Amino acid sequence: MQVILDLCLVPLGVGVSVSEYVAECHRVLQEKGLSHQLHAYGTNIEGEWDTVMAAVKQCHERVHALGAPRITTTIKLGTRIDRDQSMADKVHSVEVKLS
Amino acid sequence: MQVILDLCLVPLGVGVSVSEYVAECHRVLQEKGLSHQLHAYGTNIEGEWDTVMAAVKQCHERVHALGAPRITTTIKLGTRIDRDQSMADKVHSVEVKLS
Amino acid sequence: MQVILDLCLVPLGVGVSVSEYVAECHRVLQEKGLSHQLHAYGTNIEGEWDTVMAAVKQCHERVHALGAPRITTTIKLGTRIDRDQSMADKVHSVEVKLS
Amino acid sequence: MQVILDLCLVPLGVGVSVSEYVAECHRVLQEKGLSHQLHAYGTNIEGEWDTVMAAVKQCHERVHALGAPRITTTIKLGTRIDRDQSMADKVHSVEVKLS
Repeated sequence: MQVILDLCLVPLGVGVSVSEYVAECHRVLQEKGLSHQLHAYGTNIEGEWDTVMAAVKQCHERVHALGAPRITTTIKLGTRIDRDQSMADKVHSVEVKLS
Repeated sequence: MQVILDLCLVPLGVGVSVSEYVAECHRVLQEKGLSHQLHAYGTNIEGEWDTVMAAVKQCHERVHALGAPRITTTIKLGTRIDRDQSMADKVHSVEVKLS
Repeated sequence: MQVILDLCLVPLGVGVSVSEYVAECHRVLQEKGLSHQLHAYGTNIEGEWDTVMAAVKQCHERVHALGAPRITTTIKLGTRIDRDQSMADKVHSVEVKLS
Repeated sequence: MQVILDLCLVPLGVGVSVSEYVAECHRVLQEKGLSHQLHAYGTNIEGEWDTVMAAVKQCHERVHALGAPRITTTIKLGTRIDRDQSMADKVHSVEVKLS
């Protein structure tokens, strides 16, 4: 089952700056070879469900290992069985309607 | 790693009523023996990360099997390594501040 | 336009304990006379769109005033024009399917 | 109070394709003159709190007017009083850590 997932991980107890921890998550996604795209309020990821979810778990483990005692994460995720759809397809289909 | 997770699964392409699909997710949680609590905009679940995430995956599989061609899900999830905290602890600690 | 909204406000830069700030939000909701229900990962609120959204804004203002330099909030919100539906209706309609 | 907001509006009861409704939201944002950026699981918006929230309300009104009987929306939003920060700043500060 393919999934498109929007990940927004927020470490607590480490002050107001969180970019160092978001960067660590990007290293995890790069190591896993997952297609991903950073935006201003999270990171979009696509891939096989188990691979993507293993990466999300590893993000939590690595951010805790960097010193964050507590993490709260917001995820949006979509699956569909009627047809294949990539992250690029989703953006493209809105852009077509707007042009 | 223990997790407290808020699950809000929304099937698309099946009309405006979604309670049948939410009920199916509750059957999954009951089968897995996971502690959970329904509220007006989702379901709180607590347990070991892998068990909880396996349940979330099964919710998607079972809701697709019931006929939903597309699903979009919003999840909030929290982990902490500084101390144990249950769902009841979280609610209690706010109530104490209010009393 | 009526709305049912799930509010999860997270102050950053104030350490790992957030219950004091969640309690302040509940005081705002009580002052506004809005029907609301605390759960383990947020607070459900129902009411007229403008009243509910004014309360959400005031939660941010009051939590900043308490000393939080940064806040990240996750909201789920639902509107429908086909029929009236309360928070209690939503929970009840799942419980009926499960019984 | 400035806000950075991630908007993901999902119409229910209109089938599996939602891009027409997302496009309508983009027209609202353009009409309001709000800086915004579409991504694969939502749209990032920045601006003054009241202007951004008025746009979110108008998105719901316009999507209902297009025929959607029910809408569920997920929002992430951030405010800070310690310093100014734009959407571009947030992305840039992660990219610097990764380079």
